[in-house]
Amino acid sequence: SCPGFGSVAKYVAVSIREAAFDVASMAKTSTKVFVMEVMGRHAGWIAAAGGLAAETEGDAPQVILFPEVAFDEEAFLARVKDSVEKNEYCAIVVSEGVRNSEGKFLSEAGGTDAFGHAQLGGVAPIIAELVKQKLGYKYHWAVCDYLQRAARHIASAVDVEQAYAMGEAAVNFALEGRNGMMPVVVRTNNDPYHWQVGHALLADVANVEKKMPPEYISEDGFGITEQCRRYLQPLIEGEAYPPYKNGLPDYVRLKNVPVPKILNTPFEIS
Amino acid sequence: SCPGFGSVAKYVAVSIREAAFDVASMAKTSTKVFVMEVMGRHAGWIAAAGGLAAETEGDAPQVILFPEVAFDEEAFLARVKDSVEKNEYCAIVVSEGVRNSEGKFLSEAGGTDAFGHAQLGGVAPIIAELVKQKLGYKYHWAVCDYLQRAARHIASAVDVEQAYAMGEAAVNFALEGRNGMMPVVVRTNNDPYHWQVGHALLADVANVEKKMPPEYISEDGFGITEQCRRYLQPLIEGEAYPPYKNGLPDYVRLKNVPVPKILNTPFEIS
Repeated sequence: SCPGFGSVAKYVAVSIREAAFDVASMAKTSTKVFVMEVMGRHAGWIAAAGGLAAETEGDAPQVILFPEVAFDEEAFLARVKDSVEKNEYCAIVVSEGVRNSEGKFLSEAGGTDAFGHAQLGGVAPIIAELVKQKLGYKYHWAVCDYLQRAARHIASAVDVEQAYAMGEAAVNFALEGRNGMMPVVVRTNNDPYHWQVGHALLADVANVEKKMPPEYISEDGFGITEQCRRYLQPLIEGEAYPPYKNGLPDYVRLKNVPVPKILNTPFEIS
Repeated sequence: SCPGFGSVAKYVAVSIREAAFDVASMAKTSTKVFVMEVMGRHAGWIAAAGGLAAETEGDAPQVILFPEVAFDEEAFLARVKDSVEKNEYCAIVVSEGVRNSEGKFLSEAGGTDAFGHAQLGGVAPIIAELVKQKLGYKYHWAVCDYLQRAARHIASAVDVEQAYAMGEAAVNFALEGRNGMMPVVVRTNNDPYHWQVGHALLADVANVEKKMPPEYISEDGFGITEQCRRYLQPLIEGEAYPPYKNGLPDYVRLKNVPVPKILNTPFEIS
């Protein structure tokens, strides 16, 4: 996994759990469907992380929409209806990259408006409006965008540890003259979770996206499997709170002052 | 202030600070403008809380859009441009209730699309798209929605203490037969912050919204004053982390089992 992912995963799982409790408390008389949009244009790892919040039958999120699964409107609506009838509400995590059966992004399916303006983006409002039009349920929606990847306040302790290790390893790679490669987290055992620092060639990883394997997505396409949960769970473990000042995280600000060049050995990226 | 507000305020201030660091780190070559939409249909208290993140000249958010201030497109764009030129980026907090000079919600100004469908809502994408069209800056936007009011994981310690006190007071009011009233937080001193439990008649507070006083909004209409900061700051103080299990907040679930009625004195809401 990539450094940073564990903390995004934790943010997404925490956020959908919290919002779902909010919806559940009002569902009888108000909002019944909540849609939360997360990043992932082609791969559904972040959406899958939302599934960690659902530990017991009926827990939110009741529906996850992955970029890897073509959107099936009828099956989706049936699933939402079923959840509302069973749980009084339905919490949905949708990946920004969800597509229809023709491979077109749902967020683009609307095309342009009457003035030829491009649609303003966001698949959450489209999913929410669909639910309203077809099932009549009152909805709310959120779009996490940068909040999910910047949320150091709810970082995973495992992820923070790995991020520091990657930084240290990268500096050592540079000092050792190893270039064209980057340090990576290598999982050596699943349960208990063990990892070590490895390396990958930039040529192998740059611009390569790893999609969710089919065995990580439940058969109906709307959730994660136990195998996926076992893979993701270790990455969100532990809390690593930043220091606070005046009620706000007191983040370090780099001065970004250029320093004299130390490495004088010429190198090319191999 | 209302119980719950301090925690929403803390979430909003933390979130805009974090997202702004993200944008700042990429602004030279990528996204320059980030827009975060918060709740507040008629009153800008939550948007104002975002202003707590800006402790030093140039800090995010550089622009706040309040429902109390008619949206001035020209002044807004000039302000965004100025911020991008000075800071390389601009972080904007926009209240869902921001209106144009005719008093119309910006989120509704677009009306319906080519098919007569109502617009899907969200003022953040409208503001972001305006910036793109008029200034050409690349943007990202987020809509917090329920996440902001459900985020117990980043609750303010002051707010949690007050919420418990309000709950206890409400039970005592009921036991004492005092009805038609609710407990409220009464501020008795600003610095150091002191408060006590008071009460308000429901008839006086139900359906009444308190707008931001003019002296809390900066003269240019895009920020908060020191007076506003002094009022809001105590409400976000202190962290009150929930217990965690499996990397996620372990929230109490009520069984919602009906119990026999204890209070048998008949009463009417006065």
